[in-house]
Amino acid sequence: MLPDEMRELREMTRVMVDLLDNAGYGEVRTPTLEYERAMAGAELGPSAAYRLIDEHGDALVLRSDMTVPIVRVAVTRYETDDLPLRFSYLARAWRRVKPRSGEAREILQLGAELIGSEPIDAAAELLALCGEVLSSAGLADWQIGLGDARILGELLEASGASDADSRALLEAVRDQDLVTVDALAKELGVPQAATIARTRINGDDLEGFDPVGIGINPDSAAWSDLTTVVGALSPEFRTRVVLDLGLAPKIDYYDGIVFEAYDPAIGRALGGGGSYDALMRAFGSSASGFGFALDTELVHAAVAGEERGEGS
Amino acid sequence: MLPDEMRELREMTRVMVDLLDNAGYGEVRTPTLEYERAMAGAELGPSAAYRLIDEHGDALVLRSDMTVPIVRVAVTRYETDDLPLRFSYLARAWRRVKPRSGEAREILQLGAELIGSEPIDAAAELLALCGEVLSSAGLADWQIGLGDARILGELLEASGASDADSRALLEAVRDQDLVTVDALAKELGVPQAATIARTRINGDDLEGFDPVGIGINPDSAAWSDLTTVVGALSPEFRTRVVLDLGLAPKIDYYDGIVFEAYDPAIGRALGGGGSYDALMRAFGSSASGFGFALDTELVHAAVAGEERGEGS
Repeated sequence: MLPDEMRELREMTRVMVDLLDNAGYGEVRTPTLEYERAMAGAELGPSAAYRLIDEHGDALVLRSDMTVPIVRVAVTRYETDDLPLRFSYLARAWRRVKPRSGEAREILQLGAELIGSEPIDAAAELLALCGEVLSSAGLADWQIGLGDARILGELLEASGASDADSRALLEAVRDQDLVTVDALAKELGVPQAATIARTRINGDDLEGFDPVGIGINPDSAAWSDLTTVVGALSPEFRTRVVLDLGLAPKIDYYDGIVFEAYDPAIGRALGGGGSYDALMRAFGSSASGFGFALDTELVHAAVAGEERGEGS
Repeated sequence: MLPDEMRELREMTRVMVDLLDNAGYGEVRTPTLEYERAMAGAELGPSAAYRLIDEHGDALVLRSDMTVPIVRVAVTRYETDDLPLRFSYLARAWRRVKPRSGEAREILQLGAELIGSEPIDAAAELLALCGEVLSSAGLADWQIGLGDARILGELLEASGASDADSRALLEAVRDQDLVTVDALAKELGVPQAATIARTRINGDDLEGFDPVGIGINPDSAAWSDLTTVVGALSPEFRTRVVLDLGLAPKIDYYDGIVFEAYDPAIGRALGGGGSYDALMRAFGSSASGFGFALDTELVHAAVAGEERGEGS
């Protein structure tokens, strides 16, 4: 990346980091190379890490994500009465990529983590903060897709489907492979899963929506949490939200509310976030965790795309 | 690294990066993971890189230095009539460390490279720039050790010593192992090497110094270059310079003028620089190269040390 583009990216990330800092999310840094054995519990995290051997023969992993190291720092260095904790980061992460996928091996992530807050409050706070960060970067048209990993998860559990079958269906949902979704949902006896995976509701239209009609239990924790969070958002924010009930978390450790950020100028999610209580438990904490991360280079490309009038 | 310290480090590096940018050194970025085969010529560079294998079975190296990748970009992407080129960077580098050496495996380097300028001009410009960067970071007491890799190099070559013997002597000089230096210098028939390795001259006292007295040819390119560079520095800067004729480059590709930056509050060099014409030639360019890099966390520690009154 050459000087003119670097200067723009530097200015943009400075504004974003300052916004997070002013919102009480202090920037932290963790090593990029971690001992593999210190990442116990991280089987819940991204599995796409590069691995190498150090001068003593110990296995190191090149950080593929910041949430797992931050959770580890939070659990080992802070006391329960320090909660809630608010951290931000601007950090590189590396992940193995599929051949010819066009994905970047290295990403410069900007993110925030809120640990030990009430789950619903945390989701509402971080959704709003993510929106402010995107606006501060210069994006006018950002949108949020909002879902909950538990909706399809609980449906599949209730159906008695095997773990392997459930995983296959969720993967097809994640890849938006609707032919496979339809076939598997029918085979597993949960045809409503295919309907749910297709359902999109504008944030403003949620009040008039009947979950029972598509096979969702309105008293379930997932539905209750989702609607409460939408209700807690500002009216302006709500117009940017689409409830996407087929939004399956791309990162394994998200286990409740999950969201992605988009911009019409870019054909991929700019980033996303969600709750990761099970990851906290894997590190021995009963506190809740919620975070988001944005790919700064995609956000920068979206700003440039909006300036060229793309997607509008 | 936790929020308060990160905030200080962030502010400090912002000021430094902006200073370099305003001086015409535009920030660049290169991948942290490079294909090993693309680093041909880098045998002149640091050999302490971590190596790993990617998803296609290709060998990757984790960047151990920014100079080599920048030289590669400069030689492959720019034309001769673009010269001189000025680049800066704020980037992480990783290197294998000796057990129990207390060295950091990962460093956040700030640096500048000047490619295609006259060698003496380049050295004077980058020495002055390095001083400005250190002042901008908040350091009051920085000092510069200045040497030339050719002084001992040419002496050893003229003596007919073998490559292995020369390397052993230079390594002992680099480690300031003066017992070994004395023994090897005597054995190889260059006792003056031991005198030179001990010689320190204040920048202000250079005029009255007689190089012949310690066995240096005053007409050699190395001595002429060194004295010309010192003459080109401002009087204020000259008071901070010590000619250290035993200053052997810690990085293999420095092959002419070489320097290190110090502060009395910290017991190690904060960074350093030098000329690397042979590295340029290894990548197929006949242009000159000169650069420096500072360890930002050491600079930050030095600022904190000065504030506590250490070393003064």
